[in-house]
Amino acid sequence: MILHLKRNASPKERKDLLRRLALQGVQVHYSPGSGERILAAIGDRKALDAEALDKHPAVARVVPLDTSFKLANREFRPGRGEVRVGDLRFGGKRIHVMAGPCSVENRADFLAIARELRHSGATILRGGAFKPRTSPYSFQGLGEEGLRILAEAREETGLLVVTEVMDTRDVELVCRYADIVQIGARNVQNFALLKEVGRARKPVLLKRGMMTTVNEYLMSAEYIMSGGNYAVLLCERGVRSFDPATRNMMDLAAVPLVHHWSHLPIIVDPSHGTGNWRWVPPLAKAGIAAGADGLMIEVHANPDQAYSDGEQSLLPERFRALMRDLKKIASVLGRTI
Amino acid sequence: MILHLKRNASPKERKDLLRRLALQGVQVHYSPGSGERILAAIGDRKALDAEALDKHPAVARVVPLDTSFKLANREFRPGRGEVRVGDLRFGGKRIHVMAGPCSVENRADFLAIARELRHSGATILRGGAFKPRTSPYSFQGLGEEGLRILAEAREETGLLVVTEVMDTRDVELVCRYADIVQIGARNVQNFALLKEVGRARKPVLLKRGMMTTVNEYLMSAEYIMSGGNYAVLLCERGVRSFDPATRNMMDLAAVPLVHHWSHLPIIVDPSHGTGNWRWVPPLAKAGIAAGADGLMIEVHANPDQAYSDGEQSLLPERFRALMRDLKKIASVLGRTI
Amino acid sequence: MILHLKRNASPKERKDLLRRLALQGVQVHYSPGSGERILAAIGDRKALDAEALDKHPAVARVVPLDTSFKLANREFRPGRGEVRVGDLRFGGKRIHVMAGPCSVENRADFLAIARELRHSGATILRGGAFKPRTSPYSFQGLGEEGLRILAEAREETGLLVVTEVMDTRDVELVCRYADIVQIGARNVQNFALLKEVGRARKPVLLKRGMMTTVNEYLMSAEYIMSGGNYAVLLCERGVRSFDPATRNMMDLAAVPLVHHWSHLPIIVDPSHGTGNWRWVPPLAKAGIAAGADGLMIEVHANPDQAYSDGEQSLLPERFRALMRDLKKIASVLGRTI
Amino acid sequence: MILHLKRNASPKERKDLLRRLALQGVQVHYSPGSGERILAAIGDRKALDAEALDKHPAVARVVPLDTSFKLANREFRPGRGEVRVGDLRFGGKRIHVMAGPCSVENRADFLAIARELRHSGATILRGGAFKPRTSPYSFQGLGEEGLRILAEAREETGLLVVTEVMDTRDVELVCRYADIVQIGARNVQNFALLKEVGRARKPVLLKRGMMTTVNEYLMSAEYIMSGGNYAVLLCERGVRSFDPATRNMMDLAAVPLVHHWSHLPIIVDPSHGTGNWRWVPPLAKAGIAAGADGLMIEVHANPDQAYSDGEQSLLPERFRALMRDLKKIASVLGRTI
Repeated sequence: MILHLKRNASPKERKDLLRRLALQGVQVHYSPGSGERILAAIGDRKALDAEALDKHPAVARVVPLDTSFKLANREFRPGRGEVRVGDLRFGGKRIHVMAGPCSVENRADFLAIARELRHSGATILRGGAFKPRTSPYSFQGLGEEGLRILAEAREETGLLVVTEVMDTRDVELVCRYADIVQIGARNVQNFALLKEVGRARKPVLLKRGMMTTVNEYLMSAEYIMSGGNYAVLLCERGVRSFDPATRNMMDLAAVPLVHHWSHLPIIVDPSHGTGNWRWVPPLAKAGIAAGADGLMIEVHANPDQAYSDGEQSLLPERFRALMRDLKKIASVLGRTI
Repeated sequence: MILHLKRNASPKERKDLLRRLALQGVQVHYSPGSGERILAAIGDRKALDAEALDKHPAVARVVPLDTSFKLANREFRPGRGEVRVGDLRFGGKRIHVMAGPCSVENRADFLAIARELRHSGATILRGGAFKPRTSPYSFQGLGEEGLRILAEAREETGLLVVTEVMDTRDVELVCRYADIVQIGARNVQNFALLKEVGRARKPVLLKRGMMTTVNEYLMSAEYIMSGGNYAVLLCERGVRSFDPATRNMMDLAAVPLVHHWSHLPIIVDPSHGTGNWRWVPPLAKAGIAAGADGLMIEVHANPDQAYSDGEQSLLPERFRALMRDLKKIASVLGRTI
Repeated sequence: MILHLKRNASPKERKDLLRRLALQGVQVHYSPGSGERILAAIGDRKALDAEALDKHPAVARVVPLDTSFKLANREFRPGRGEVRVGDLRFGGKRIHVMAGPCSVENRADFLAIARELRHSGATILRGGAFKPRTSPYSFQGLGEEGLRILAEAREETGLLVVTEVMDTRDVELVCRYADIVQIGARNVQNFALLKEVGRARKPVLLKRGMMTTVNEYLMSAEYIMSGGNYAVLLCERGVRSFDPATRNMMDLAAVPLVHHWSHLPIIVDPSHGTGNWRWVPPLAKAGIAAGADGLMIEVHANPDQAYSDGEQSLLPERFRALMRDLKKIASVLGRTI
Repeated sequence: MILHLKRNASPKERKDLLRRLALQGVQVHYSPGSGERILAAIGDRKALDAEALDKHPAVARVVPLDTSFKLANREFRPGRGEVRVGDLRFGGKRIHVMAGPCSVENRADFLAIARELRHSGATILRGGAFKPRTSPYSFQGLGEEGLRILAEAREETGLLVVTEVMDTRDVELVCRYADIVQIGARNVQNFALLKEVGRARKPVLLKRGMMTTVNEYLMSAEYIMSGGNYAVLLCERGVRSFDPATRNMMDLAAVPLVHHWSHLPIIVDPSHGTGNWRWVPPLAKAGIAAGADGLMIEVHANPDQAYSDGEQSLLPERFRALMRDLKKIASVLGRTI
């Protein structure tokens, strides 16, 4: 339930309201940027008597919610909520492009591609240090060494960095190096991990699972937010389908759906969404046309030699050409890249 | 197998080649526009001895095919094959928009919406006379009366008309009235019907089934083409998924996939693809950005009163606004609407 | 809406009731075996005033239906409705096994396998004369010649025969030869064909589609029944999934679901359901354990030489061994084979 | 690659072989029960020269593997490998039934149901202490208090206990109380957690994910085994489908597939597999008929009051009746319960 407080409610009235809610075990979250005037009251139905709350002198309006996500709900944060990452803002007019290789493979190559990507207009650098691989015998990432390379690339290029965390015990470590911590598709309902990043003070990029409904996806975001971390970025990266023609099937309707139900920004990852570099440019364009707030694109200087996901990685020159096309589309949609 | 004949092959040499192929039960199809210089030879492997054919004096080049679709294959018709419908061409620079209500409900309303759509820039009018409904007790369409109304609307507006056929026995009737005959998603593997429209001399709009892989889809097109009717338009209209948030899940990667494997044009239907008018504009834009050759959009003056699919129908004014946005996107992609 | 009439309603009262229903355009169907005492009244809601009907002197009880299938609903035909095919009954204590090759390939082989299957305990012979193949270049069946071979096999073995019809124009022809006409998975929502077999006087085996929900499936049965043909057998044959490990994924919960919602018998086809002969015996047993009223199993004397579906065909000796196992399971479930 | 060593290989020859493998970074795992005579050599292809190894004096036979799972492969452990849990063995003639409520809700109720289940013939008690819930606001389990209740129930009834672990940091804690640690469907590709239980010395029940192919599933088992913990039990619990009629769709073909490809035992969970108590008995029977090595069934004395999954919980008397039916089916299949 969302409560809008009266502008002129007295401190005493406010305090009384909070005391009553606390007595009934109701959790309270303030809508960021509302000057503590909009709050979500979360508890079981019996504890939340809408009628009584509506009459409370501090309350201007009670908005009941018909979805199970409360903090991720548009009612909690009217308008399109922006998420800040360093100096960047997601969810506004500007579309951000995260790019980079699937994995951080070694220092020299990573720094080289980082410079290249900055020139092409990417604002955020991606690269996995901890890799979720189907096989225990596949390359599992460089671990902390990879994180250090990411940090060095940030130093040198000024780009921010996003990288995945897979274990609750690594959250602190990854937060020390990354600007955005990523929760991968396979961990979208790893609730222990969601709670842990919910306690962190870093923006989280939460990827949709291969079999997660949009509603469940927003519930996973809610797990993070209910821990107090409201800086959640969503990412549609394709779901599983019956057709082996592509690695996954991109569900671009998720973009307007998320914007309709939630204030959270959502980006699109056509690299995992299609699994083949050929389909990345058309689907990246389609994602922007559908209203996405950003893109995540895999780029590799030698896709054939990539430790992982080479087939879906764009060559740097193809990425550059794509960026030019994306800028044109963004401009006719009233956005910038 | 595709055979490129020598430019200077003598009539006798050509005749000899055809005789040999015929003797082994091989079917021959000429690539349209190739001046009988490119042909598909279709038969079982034993009958098709690539090596021997390669040495035949009439043959310049043998192209083996690794897909089971031959006539729908890009090798059969190099470049992007255009499909003519009246004076319009699908598959070229121009993007065509088919619009109209789900069903033809009555003469007056249909003529009214037809005029409206012409003004908005649609070039083809859609409307069902025979309706495939899940329930036998739902409105089944006006039948031939609906076809007559479609024809009248064409007369008055100059728009071409597309409408669905569901029964082999109705193909002749529907062809008499329609400019394009539509095979609906549920009939995508109704092989008897595909063969029947393959014998017709009308362009066919073949919708993808809810559970059809892109490969199977091209095989269904092949059924029509193998009957001699090469004027096939494909249409991605969403497939079934696990997420009830939308009626179907649009697989926009099908657009570049079809363009990569086949010369056939492909359009996109975001109305069925999403099932809700709210998501139609973003997905229509995304379809165009992904490279679609056209759109099919349901428009109804009173969606609440529609006999079918009201929820996914745009109001005429929303359609007009969408057309304006689409034109802008098309222009930066080097296309027109 | 289902109406139970009073046992002692006078002819005049009954006639009055029917007249009223007819005046409002309500369709009436009598429950088979109810002595015209249970009827389904089908029309739009306004025409069906439950309260007024409840007070009518001929009416004992009004049962509103909350599903869109009426004639397929358990309320229309209380208990487990039996479907007769010749002397056999489906849906009772006895489990029937339909077996045979995918296609009728030639007379000699078909007669040989037919004799073999009779000895193993099958009661119905399957074999396709009209084949729905993904490719127009694959073997399409022997057509009427195949039907004649089926009829001859019936003559010789006493087994009944089931075979597929794909075109509305062939329904009469197929009905002339077959004891059960089959609608294949790809035609489960070919409504023109469903209506046509609804007019036939032959039992229909309606296979579930690869992407048909149980509810839609019962609606397809309703199409047939609303034409007056109540002899419908359902068949779970696997649906499409994301896992390429099997051709389809068998949804055995469909068996108890259908029995809960409907009076129609349901059999199980583990050959198409798995696509590999190795998994046929365990899934056949599982189908029986789940409560299926019959099985359809592909058997071929030379699977490697089969024109279609060889990989999923059992060798005759494996089929014989399976039948022995099935009998044991049936017996502990209180059924016979 | 699997190596069968010669029975009479000398200690020196063996040592030499191991040294060579170690030099090339190849991991060695001995097949349990093989007396160190069968081993899996895991490394990249270049390191594993089959021809050279075949000639090594200690090697009797080299078996190349065409699957990416090595330790889960049937070649690693010929025959059907049994997994011991306390005095019980999974994978042999005896079928084990794990039963209990979804969550441990309180001491008194749990002890009561535990006694009841022992009388009905269950051998393992289930109950969640850490619960993976879609919503952060739903009951999350009693945590360690729940584990203590589980242990007390084991003391009193002699039943073994299985319970879920969700966080790498809790593995040690859960192992202290449980006889089998469960990895839930949502964590099937939580690789950090798989590695952690791979280091534990407790049997692991690994549930299949809602969207996991059988191949990926076996790769997840491989993660656990590659850590040295070979005691893995698999569990088919339904995957996600397009049909909302059931909570999940049970893929019973997974049972024979797993038995064909792997030596690991596999049980079936019809409670999550269907989501409705009505379909649990038929699907439990079907699971056994398909060859499952065990069942997991939710039972609750007051399903309406259950904190979670009440709808899919059987009443104790229904569970008792089901056990009687299962025993009959098991007996005709040559197994016991």
